[in-house]
Amino acid sequence: MSANRWVAGIHAVETALAGGRGRVVRLLTDQRRRDQRLARLIEHAQRASIPVERVHARQLEAQVGDVRHQGVCAEVRGAAILDEDELAARVEALAHAPLLLALDGVQDPHNLGACLRSAEAAGADAVIVPRDRAARLTPTVERAAAGAAELIPLAAVTNLTRTLESLKQLGCWVIGTTGGADTALHAADLTGPLVLVMGGEEKGLRPRTQSACDRLVSIPMAGRSESLNVSVAAGVCLFEALRQRRAHQVPHDASD
Amino acid sequence: MSANRWVAGIHAVETALAGGRGRVVRLLTDQRRRDQRLARLIEHAQRASIPVERVHARQLEAQVGDVRHQGVCAEVRGAAILDEDELAARVEALAHAPLLLALDGVQDPHNLGACLRSAEAAGADAVIVPRDRAARLTPTVERAAAGAAELIPLAAVTNLTRTLESLKQLGCWVIGTTGGADTALHAADLTGPLVLVMGGEEKGLRPRTQSACDRLVSIPMAGRSESLNVSVAAGVCLFEALRQRRAHQVPHDASD
Repeated sequence: MSANRWVAGIHAVETALAGGRGRVVRLLTDQRRRDQRLARLIEHAQRASIPVERVHARQLEAQVGDVRHQGVCAEVRGAAILDEDELAARVEALAHAPLLLALDGVQDPHNLGACLRSAEAAGADAVIVPRDRAARLTPTVERAAAGAAELIPLAAVTNLTRTLESLKQLGCWVIGTTGGADTALHAADLTGPLVLVMGGEEKGLRPRTQSACDRLVSIPMAGRSESLNVSVAAGVCLFEALRQRRAHQVPHDASD
Repeated sequence: MSANRWVAGIHAVETALAGGRGRVVRLLTDQRRRDQRLARLIEHAQRASIPVERVHARQLEAQVGDVRHQGVCAEVRGAAILDEDELAARVEALAHAPLLLALDGVQDPHNLGACLRSAEAAGADAVIVPRDRAARLTPTVERAAAGAAELIPLAAVTNLTRTLESLKQLGCWVIGTTGGADTALHAADLTGPLVLVMGGEEKGLRPRTQSACDRLVSIPMAGRSESLNVSVAAGVCLFEALRQRRAHQVPHDASD
């Protein structure tokens, strides 16, 4: 699946332009804005022979809705959204131990965007969402991802449980995070081929998703709040995985 | 400083009610909503002899703006916002090694709320913001904090650099996080009295804030994104501090 999409905001458009390889089709900029970062963006686009159309702010809003666009949006060739088979092919082709993030029904576009950003920064290979229950790659998601939606593949799958089962067949260890689990995140071995599964904002992991996990872990907490924002929880888990993987590769590099 | 404030949304109001001790002054609920969680909230309030006013949705919006209120908001006695002296007194009075989070100019209310939630969940003792540059405790912040704004003190200080200096005098180690730092977060000792300092969304740590830090660290990353959402970065740092503190207290409890 692939279609052109709009990304909005200076950071997201910068990242799309940095993606190179004919990714950006055109820029729309607010004809009334004059600021240095915007001017640099326009210059960058023109050097790359990308058409820049100076338009009324209303036309920007028509493309991207009420997301904070900072006077610029870009039409980009859609980052391919993978289906189950494409995901499996990618995972099989990896030369390193896969790190995947699965989101079981994250609805809030800011949260999905922040998860994409964290997953990309932690070196994850893909983010997996159920096709029917998840937020889509809207401009709000793109903006919250600060460009990372261009850099990390998103897989939208028909049946998350089945996808987790097939990733297990490919050698992945599936670890779900849920507040009630006895095992602490830091006590789990996150160094091998790994799928981290996070629940949605309201209901957490669905029971059938939990059953598909090899193991459930919880983030140890010390306050009275019972849960974290899902994008924060995903970040904590992903960067703990990255910490363990690096410590594993280069023993003792974590000594102070 | 203290004043009554409004919190909105079922989770935030639940947490405020759970805070007990006469914290909630009254509830406003949308007279047209009928759902179970809302009904349970109303019952809870009535058992605690807290007045519940069933009003038109417009009256809710008049109190809390366009935040997603889910048909309920509560007037709560303001969690005290601490000034420099109150903060210092609190820190001195702690029986354990303080863990504080300082935000150098976080502007976005969702980010401030998520930071409060993460800090509370990680067992931090307070969150510190500069009085003039930070997002305030608005209903949007309260909602993003999912009730944690009621549970963790916020200190609003006139001069962040001076506050960091005085916390150093009280024995705290001040660690700033910035993308450019050579030391990895995980290589720093986070087990003692600690202030973690995070930069704002756009500019990161100001130079004079950096100068006030004993040490600068960065979160090791593995992707092409150069930065994380500030609330995710704060979560990663806070839960790494908590991990180290627990491992330090009970050696070997992290073995699998």
